[in-house]
Amino acid sequence: MQPSPDARTASVLDPAAVAEMFRREIRAELATLSEPLFLVGVLAADHGPSFTYAEYTRKACEDVGVRFEIRHATRLTAEDAIRAANADPGVHGIMVYYPIFGTEQDAYLRDTVDPSKDIEGLHTFWARCLYGNLRFLDAAKTRKAILPCTPLAVLKLVEAAGFFAGERPLEGRSVCIFNRSEVVGRPLACMMAHDGARVTSFDIDGPLLFAPSASGEMHEVKETTVDRATALREADIVVTGVPSREFPHVRAAEIREGALCINFSTFKNFSDDVLSKAKVFVPRVGPMTVTMAIRNSLRLYKNMHGGGKVEETSAPA
Amino acid sequence: MQPSPDARTASVLDPAAVAEMFRREIRAELATLSEPLFLVGVLAADHGPSFTYAEYTRKACEDVGVRFEIRHATRLTAEDAIRAANADPGVHGIMVYYPIFGTEQDAYLRDTVDPSKDIEGLHTFWARCLYGNLRFLDAAKTRKAILPCTPLAVLKLVEAAGFFAGERPLEGRSVCIFNRSEVVGRPLACMMAHDGARVTSFDIDGPLLFAPSASGEMHEVKETTVDRATALREADIVVTGVPSREFPHVRAAEIREGALCINFSTFKNFSDDVLSKAKVFVPRVGPMTVTMAIRNSLRLYKNMHGGGKVEETSAPA
Repeated sequence: MQPSPDARTASVLDPAAVAEMFRREIRAELATLSEPLFLVGVLAADHGPSFTYAEYTRKACEDVGVRFEIRHATRLTAEDAIRAANADPGVHGIMVYYPIFGTEQDAYLRDTVDPSKDIEGLHTFWARCLYGNLRFLDAAKTRKAILPCTPLAVLKLVEAAGFFAGERPLEGRSVCIFNRSEVVGRPLACMMAHDGARVTSFDIDGPLLFAPSASGEMHEVKETTVDRATALREADIVVTGVPSREFPHVRAAEIREGALCINFSTFKNFSDDVLSKAKVFVPRVGPMTVTMAIRNSLRLYKNMHGGGKVEETSAPA
Repeated sequence: MQPSPDARTASVLDPAAVAEMFRREIRAELATLSEPLFLVGVLAADHGPSFTYAEYTRKACEDVGVRFEIRHATRLTAEDAIRAANADPGVHGIMVYYPIFGTEQDAYLRDTVDPSKDIEGLHTFWARCLYGNLRFLDAAKTRKAILPCTPLAVLKLVEAAGFFAGERPLEGRSVCIFNRSEVVGRPLACMMAHDGARVTSFDIDGPLLFAPSASGEMHEVKETTVDRATALREADIVVTGVPSREFPHVRAAEIREGALCINFSTFKNFSDDVLSKAKVFVPRVGPMTVTMAIRNSLRLYKNMHGGGKVEETSAPA
């Protein structure tokens, strides 16, 4: 139920508008390259969200002047399609549309993508850079590590919503995240803690606390017994990514006045009434995710151009 | 319900007895080394199956003359415990007792173990060797790849049960496996197909067929619509590893006369009446799994001793 207009306090932040700002930067950067970027999408579905998302990627790429080709596969040929794209020096970046198996075999496929072409930043090589707070691949700090595109998209939306301030931009902020997957929720909690926030991260097994480390740069993870009600009541920022209709929607009564509410699930995780209490509501993240993937492809291209192939060690030194 | 003794056709193969044969070989090999092997177990539980299994490992190691130390951790300190063991040149092998998080984060932890100390063979580095049928790490074929210890244990039990014959020892055999996890079911299906079997692999999403490739050495994976009844009726070998009480037990009426039935789940997956129709029944695999892990530690030690550290590339060439 939509609240009556006079009860609505929240502005709705359209991720497509924020994405457009980044695309302007991307277009300018692309213009400085000596060749056009060529990205490949591996798609094992002929309908549904993956198909729609692949089409969306194609439009976003065309929009900024990046060549994009969808390579159709079955779940059994997806690995070969990834390997072919890995091996092709003409391919600068690879995007894979999950779920493919919908099981832990998808994690195996994610790690099959060459990290130096992994524009989504989903390879565990990049996860280990993130968890180890390794921001550069070389001592000279010329080759920046890639961040996973969805958590990065969320963070840029937090900034666009006006919730960033100062050198450690989330210092003193309390955050509540519903999702602790290896590809979004855990890296996001870690990134926000690096930026100074205290993050209560919920998954089906309960909460964990991600907090800035005392020393400064790193983060710490601690057990916590805080419950949903308390975490939501205290949260300046609430991020949801629960891929289920069964998740009890986050309601206005649960959140803090003036909170930022962001949903990255393809399911609805917030009740409409949060518009009457939140300061900013971001109903979806998708357009920013694609834009961050394209941005990552630029960074990877520069890394390759500058310093050669990324070493595929599984642990940062 | 136990069948009456005269209805029982199956011999029950005790994995501990088979393990003892391998342990004799292991003791003899250990005697040729210039130093005792030292293995570390990372345990984040103080009771339950993981705890019991860790204690069992300690006894098995003592039995063959390998030093074994259990390092207690919490789920949040397990990664540090693994990294410390990775970095310690005095530690020759590492075993981690899962579940630790019980989520996909456990896969992240599995890949945190240095592959050259991963005696369970669970790192995706080893999975990629297996799926690519890369049996050696070097061109001179002096450094053998490690196989994951539970699938290897199952295969050795198939051999001990008398179901191996000829150069491609499972040629012409039909196999049915219930479990397609990344750590047991999928590698097992692949290994059995390499050995010549046609394997119908079931998981919660349905079946896949793993078959020997026409060319010989490799395997192929194909979609199939075969159902449980048909797969079981045709199977010479039935392997179950369903971690659930809900799984409908495999019954005598479903299996082929003279089949080999192996259960590696900690839950009971077969009905007792299979003893009246199977040729050999293997109720558990655990003692062989531990023994294969110790055997892997010997192989890894030799690899390190001969050819230095395993390169941590995530994909075999």
